[in-house]
Amino acid sequence: MEKGLFITFEGADGSGKTTQLNMVKDFLIEKGFDVVVTREPGSLDIGKKIREILLHAKEIVADRCEMFLFLADRAQHVETYIKPALKQGKIVLCDRHTDSTIAYQGYGRNQDIELLKNLNKIAVNGIEPDLTLLYDVSTEIAQLRVGSEKDRMESAGMEFHKKVRNGYLELQKENPKRIKLINANNSIETVFEDTKNIIMNLIQEK
Amino acid sequence: MEKGLFITFEGADGSGKTTQLNMVKDFLIEKGFDVVVTREPGSLDIGKKIREILLHAKEIVADRCEMFLFLADRAQHVETYIKPALKQGKIVLCDRHTDSTIAYQGYGRNQDIELLKNLNKIAVNGIEPDLTLLYDVSTEIAQLRVGSEKDRMESAGMEFHKKVRNGYLELQKENPKRIKLINANNSIETVFEDTKNIIMNLIQEK
Repeated sequence: MEKGLFITFEGADGSGKTTQLNMVKDFLIEKGFDVVVTREPGSLDIGKKIREILLHAKEIVADRCEMFLFLADRAQHVETYIKPALKQGKIVLCDRHTDSTIAYQGYGRNQDIELLKNLNKIAVNGIEPDLTLLYDVSTEIAQLRVGSEKDRMESAGMEFHKKVRNGYLELQKENPKRIKLINANNSIETVFEDTKNIIMNLIQEK
Repeated sequence: MEKGLFITFEGADGSGKTTQLNMVKDFLIEKGFDVVVTREPGSLDIGKKIREILLHAKEIVADRCEMFLFLADRAQHVETYIKPALKQGKIVLCDRHTDSTIAYQGYGRNQDIELLKNLNKIAVNGIEPDLTLLYDVSTEIAQLRVGSEKDRMESAGMEFHKKVRNGYLELQKENPKRIKLINANNSIETVFEDTKNIIMNLIQEK
């Protein structure tokens, strides 16, 4: 591979996407590929400092300020981490990326979806995922799986999580070539079979 | 005044804009107006933390990351400081604002001017200056005035400062109603006369 592959993992908390990402990593390394794993937001030093701002600011953080801070984190992550890794021919597996912003802030929090899409485009500056795996799970099953963190999910409300899920499904319909839907209600093994098939198809195409 | 007045002060370092801002503040307070003075970037706690990121990041800050960080600072400043002050009927005097971004990053650093204008619009969310005073000074005179800070100006280069000046003049031509040009090559007293006349005209109109 000359240019590397950029694969993002999307879905609700409790969808199993992070488990699958780690299984994919091990699987691809075993096959001899050069793989790096990363996540958004807050994977770099700047991202950590931005998180600190959001957590410890003395004043209330305005919505648009928060939005621009997340975009700053993404711009830095893409430019200084993802882009160089792809140039070196690596497979980049990223836990959450642009689609999370649209699903959570756009659909979930009712922020302007077109605006968020445009700002995402500016932040990534031409670097788009080759493949996005969307782990779709019923909100009830996700909630059961999250278990000890259930409070956090409940506090955001079932309604919110249903809007996020619906947002992801809309994005998939708009981008059927890039975003592949995986039924994440199934067992880990079944979901991993689906995941592997999609990824190996992509690698063979390239 | 029911809605307050938002006045921004723009121009090169060495144009005398900050001196004039302080003279305007004293003049308006003496006339009985409720005046607040502020500046961009970095006037609030979040802005200071953002500056720290830019100064002390362990990694090189990508251009687009820096741009979004400045926009985050502006969004926070407008939403939590300028907007409430205007609502209380205050006159807000702000040292540098949106036009600085266009003149310095756009014209000076050759970043996409239309993009910066659009992002500024998103950051300010409908709050535009009622008046912008543009202190135009020849680059040579500005450089002489900056004196002890001359190194910094020289290091950016005369060419850069000429592009910034030209950018400001373009902005004035595009927005003749909002941006008033003041010849800042003149003495402090003459410049202050011009400044006072423009501001008192605006106040009488309102």
